[in-house]
Amino acid sequence: MVLKLSPPDNFDRAKMTDLIKRRFFYDNSFAIYGGITGQYDYGPMGCDLVDNMLAEWQKHFVIQERMLKVNCSILTPEPVLKASGHVDKFADYMVKDVKTGECYRLDHLIKQHFEKKRADKKTTNEEKEALDRKLTLLEGMTMEEMNKIVKEYAMKSPLTGNDLTDAVEFNLMFPISIGPSGSLKGFLRPETAQGIFVNFKRLLEYNQGKLPFACAQIGNAYRNEISPRSGLLRVREFTMAEIEHFCDPDDKSHPKFNQIADTEMILYSGCAQMDGEPAKKMTIGEAVHGGLVANETLGYYMARIHQYLIKIGISPKKMRFRQHLSNEMAHYACDCWDAECLTSYGWIECVGCADRSAYDLGQHTKGSGVKMCVERPLKEPILVDSVVAVPEKGIIGKTFKKDAKAVQEALLSLSSDEAEKMDKALNDSGEYQLNGFKLTRGMVPSFKREQKKVYVEDIVPSVIEPSFGVGRVFYALLEHSFRVRENDEKRTYFSLPAVVAPIKVSVLPLSNNQEFMPFTSQLADALTELSLPVRVDDSTGSIGRRYARTDEIAIPFGVTIDFDTVNNTPHTVTLRERDSTEQVRMPIEEVPVTVRKLADGKIKWSDVTSKWPKFTAQETTK
Amino acid sequence: MVLKLSPPDNFDRAKMTDLIKRRFFYDNSFAIYGGITGQYDYGPMGCDLVDNMLAEWQKHFVIQERMLKVNCSILTPEPVLKASGHVDKFADYMVKDVKTGECYRLDHLIKQHFEKKRADKKTTNEEKEALDRKLTLLEGMTMEEMNKIVKEYAMKSPLTGNDLTDAVEFNLMFPISIGPSGSLKGFLRPETAQGIFVNFKRLLEYNQGKLPFACAQIGNAYRNEISPRSGLLRVREFTMAEIEHFCDPDDKSHPKFNQIADTEMILYSGCAQMDGEPAKKMTIGEAVHGGLVANETLGYYMARIHQYLIKIGISPKKMRFRQHLSNEMAHYACDCWDAECLTSYGWIECVGCADRSAYDLGQHTKGSGVKMCVERPLKEPILVDSVVAVPEKGIIGKTFKKDAKAVQEALLSLSSDEAEKMDKALNDSGEYQLNGFKLTRGMVPSFKREQKKVYVEDIVPSVIEPSFGVGRVFYALLEHSFRVRENDEKRTYFSLPAVVAPIKVSVLPLSNNQEFMPFTSQLADALTELSLPVRVDDSTGSIGRRYARTDEIAIPFGVTIDFDTVNNTPHTVTLRERDSTEQVRMPIEEVPVTVRKLADGKIKWSDVTSKWPKFTAQETTK
Repeated sequence: MVLKLSPPDNFDRAKMTDLIKRRFFYDNSFAIYGGITGQYDYGPMGCDLVDNMLAEWQKHFVIQERMLKVNCSILTPEPVLKASGHVDKFADYMVKDVKTGECYRLDHLIKQHFEKKRADKKTTNEEKEALDRKLTLLEGMTMEEMNKIVKEYAMKSPLTGNDLTDAVEFNLMFPISIGPSGSLKGFLRPETAQGIFVNFKRLLEYNQGKLPFACAQIGNAYRNEISPRSGLLRVREFTMAEIEHFCDPDDKSHPKFNQIADTEMILYSGCAQMDGEPAKKMTIGEAVHGGLVANETLGYYMARIHQYLIKIGISPKKMRFRQHLSNEMAHYACDCWDAECLTSYGWIECVGCADRSAYDLGQHTKGSGVKMCVERPLKEPILVDSVVAVPEKGIIGKTFKKDAKAVQEALLSLSSDEAEKMDKALNDSGEYQLNGFKLTRGMVPSFKREQKKVYVEDIVPSVIEPSFGVGRVFYALLEHSFRVRENDEKRTYFSLPAVVAPIKVSVLPLSNNQEFMPFTSQLADALTELSLPVRVDDSTGSIGRRYARTDEIAIPFGVTIDFDTVNNTPHTVTLRERDSTEQVRMPIEEVPVTVRKLADGKIKWSDVTSKWPKFTAQETTK
Repeated sequence: MVLKLSPPDNFDRAKMTDLIKRRFFYDNSFAIYGGITGQYDYGPMGCDLVDNMLAEWQKHFVIQERMLKVNCSILTPEPVLKASGHVDKFADYMVKDVKTGECYRLDHLIKQHFEKKRADKKTTNEEKEALDRKLTLLEGMTMEEMNKIVKEYAMKSPLTGNDLTDAVEFNLMFPISIGPSGSLKGFLRPETAQGIFVNFKRLLEYNQGKLPFACAQIGNAYRNEISPRSGLLRVREFTMAEIEHFCDPDDKSHPKFNQIADTEMILYSGCAQMDGEPAKKMTIGEAVHGGLVANETLGYYMARIHQYLIKIGISPKKMRFRQHLSNEMAHYACDCWDAECLTSYGWIECVGCADRSAYDLGQHTKGSGVKMCVERPLKEPILVDSVVAVPEKGIIGKTFKKDAKAVQEALLSLSSDEAEKMDKALNDSGEYQLNGFKLTRGMVPSFKREQKKVYVEDIVPSVIEPSFGVGRVFYALLEHSFRVRENDEKRTYFSLPAVVAPIKVSVLPLSNNQEFMPFTSQLADALTELSLPVRVDDSTGSIGRRYARTDEIAIPFGVTIDFDTVNNTPHTVTLRERDSTEQVRMPIEEVPVTVRKLADGKIKWSDVTSKWPKFTAQETTK
């Protein structure tokens, strides 16, 4: 991850954090008990915003692409994560302060050290270039390479100046023991993907045995980060939204690629990163056909991710797709692109999009002994040599009694290679061990050899995986939509699109007068009836101050009940749009449907201003 | 929990389980690795059904009642759960087989033993009555009482006949250690409620300091069950949907009680249970005004729970509210009612609804030292004696230097009682320890005594808590909606209401003919455009078989593209309703909006049959 150190625009993080805390978008978990690093609670605003982001995600991906969906266990037995590689490899390198025992994640420490050194005036341009080169390669470095850097730069513990221990591998999974006896070892899942892989056979069956198909899962995952920091960007408990798209390894074309081929995106290729060149704007069609992006399906998802992020309010100017370098790419992946968003912490990875090839299904086939593959029709049937055991059922029955059926089945499910091997062994030694049963020549006197016509072949599907870090997208979205009103430094707000805004509409009576009450409550009820989350603010603050409060929590539309509403028929109200602060005057009974349509994106604010007369109010009266 | 042993109706659990497995509603987690007890994965159908149940829950409760919502951490540090009482008390009694070490939950073992004994022909009626009495009291029994029963009935290990150990308390929480050093001890949360309580102050602030307000949370919770069984009814990982309604302890009336007072419900009071009398049908208005249900707010939520369960498809005839007996009620609760559903496992608790009084907030005030209360305006201001320290800032500054500010603040935040105590101590011994600082008379030469007018008092709110076990409601819903077609034993299906059905509509072309394709795909796209989950089945099966397949996964509406669609203008299709199997013929372009309205409950099937001509097809052609 290459960091640009300067914050974007004139963004003021302290100001945004103040608003986030004050209006409880999110905050440290268990704050009254002193809080806990790397864990956050989402308050009413944050919670609704995330829910709306995910609802839109489901519409955009699951419903539009007719995906399957699963919800799998988080408590995961060890053998599953042994097979997936997490038990052996899901680790970061950790060093400790030799005196205090404080733990640090080594790559972060190196990055921090290099950034400080880079900012030092005494550092020569040559040295800076060397640092940049190393930073680019940092994510893919081995433990030995990092240990070497610690020695080379004489790095010390940042808080105390003490020496650091050599690095050790620290597995990031939380171990857990399941059941009262404590004998069943497991972990909290570190990603949602494995739940989909272990259910592959059932999902394939559900899809009537056909490829391609995709399955999505939204849920929590856990990583015991060594020293979490950077707020929501590095946490121990987080929500992921992952898609596993299973397809023919020899045909990764996508039927709807043409629909998105012209999408313009900023692509930062591996070569450009190595050569120190900037990212490039191009269409995904160019990128796929020119060979930069590995295949149509991968490209299709990249474009769909791009569209989704823009729809929920990520700034297209602060988004890019960065290709993994060969040294940081998992060894099984063919190609991998991260959707990164520019924030005050630099470019951060928000969505990964990888072609994981057949790796995961292959691993679980090995781990579980259950074959994970798909039958693909052959263009021409082929002839294959077949060897089939011909058992002597009587002897097997007498010998194995209640196990006889299992032995028979094991014999019939032998592959031709295994059967051939067994025949040879019985000839040589007179016996053969099959699944723990000792078989003799008498039990399997002969093997039938023939040529069989075969119409299908077994293939292991490839997997294309878009994987969303929901908390990171959420945080980037907050930064990208944070605004300060011109000429009023104190009026900060979030310019969230209506589709994800937590509350869609506010109702503000201009006066506490009895006569206003029925209008307020009936309108609020009518809006609620259309499932629109509504906020009534009948406090005594000036209307300007109340608008400012609704702006802070990103309410896109506001209705004011004023004296004209109460005194004139037909009863009219004003409807205000948050970003422009424009208002129109319209009949009160038209409001609910209009706001519903605005919230769903069925009409735009300009449709409203062209239909109803503008209303000019003095928002500044306080 | 009183079990009725006879399964309801002629429900066939094996038949339903077959359908659930075959169409992947849910299944054992990690089945390819041999599965794991007490954990389940939800497949595409189960996952969508749960999501739809929860979406409706949010509309019914969160949006309709304008609740706040939070999403809090699952990893919970020990002090939080120590304060809530879970570390000390969240345990079941466990016995072990003395030889095999197999663990059993004692109350389940006793229940099983009693039920067997009850079914024994040799058991006299008198003995049966004694067993029934003990079963009624079982949930609230102490460990000693249960141990006594084991001895009295000479109970043995059910699998081996071996002796059983004495019972021990087994804490049901999963311990976990947070961070790389392993020094921070915590647990996976056993319920979602605590996340709301620890955020109470922020939520109150968000609600502008006013009572009442309610906050909801949906999320996972974990209980390390001793020996999970009964499928989804007892699991180690599950989803809860909880509401904490905070209100004035002296005013538990509810402004909308009148709107639900006439709701008829089956109530099974504590007295009726003790007296062996049946549950009674009555309105919630009668129950509250007669004093059976403790207060309006509790009654309001019971009625709203009742309405919700019926809306999603729970059979009103198989639902009752059972009052907790005083011996099973948590010691802090004033009144508690469980919404129970009748299933083939007997009556099972699906939703709890308790008045938890001020217990939880009080516990966290003690645990965290942070006061959790609300300022309530007094009707008349009152005069109170006030004692305030008057510090000598110079001396304090000189003595404590950088800590001086903390000392000053501690002095100013003393309560009158504490200040009085300090004054006395300074008079008696000349010094006083405050937060670890030694203060002398010279630092606090005098105390100001006066009478103050006070306009508000601090109160600790009461909490009313509706708590949904989502998996249990889900399971009861499946049983209640499981159907077998008359005259066709093999055609099983789920009669789920459209609002929760996973897929809303199917599109079935009658022929694979090229000419059908554009109609199929355009209609499917138009339905998807309205965010309707759609299933296209263009397989070669007969239309009757394909209808049966869509019925199995509860698709409420089906569109058939037939030869009339293709050959005649205007192009018309048939629309079929699942439960009645009735069909109408209508123009193809009217279908999407009609289905959208049906799915949202805006119109009924009878509205459709009265608008369009009926169509009679032979579904049985295979």
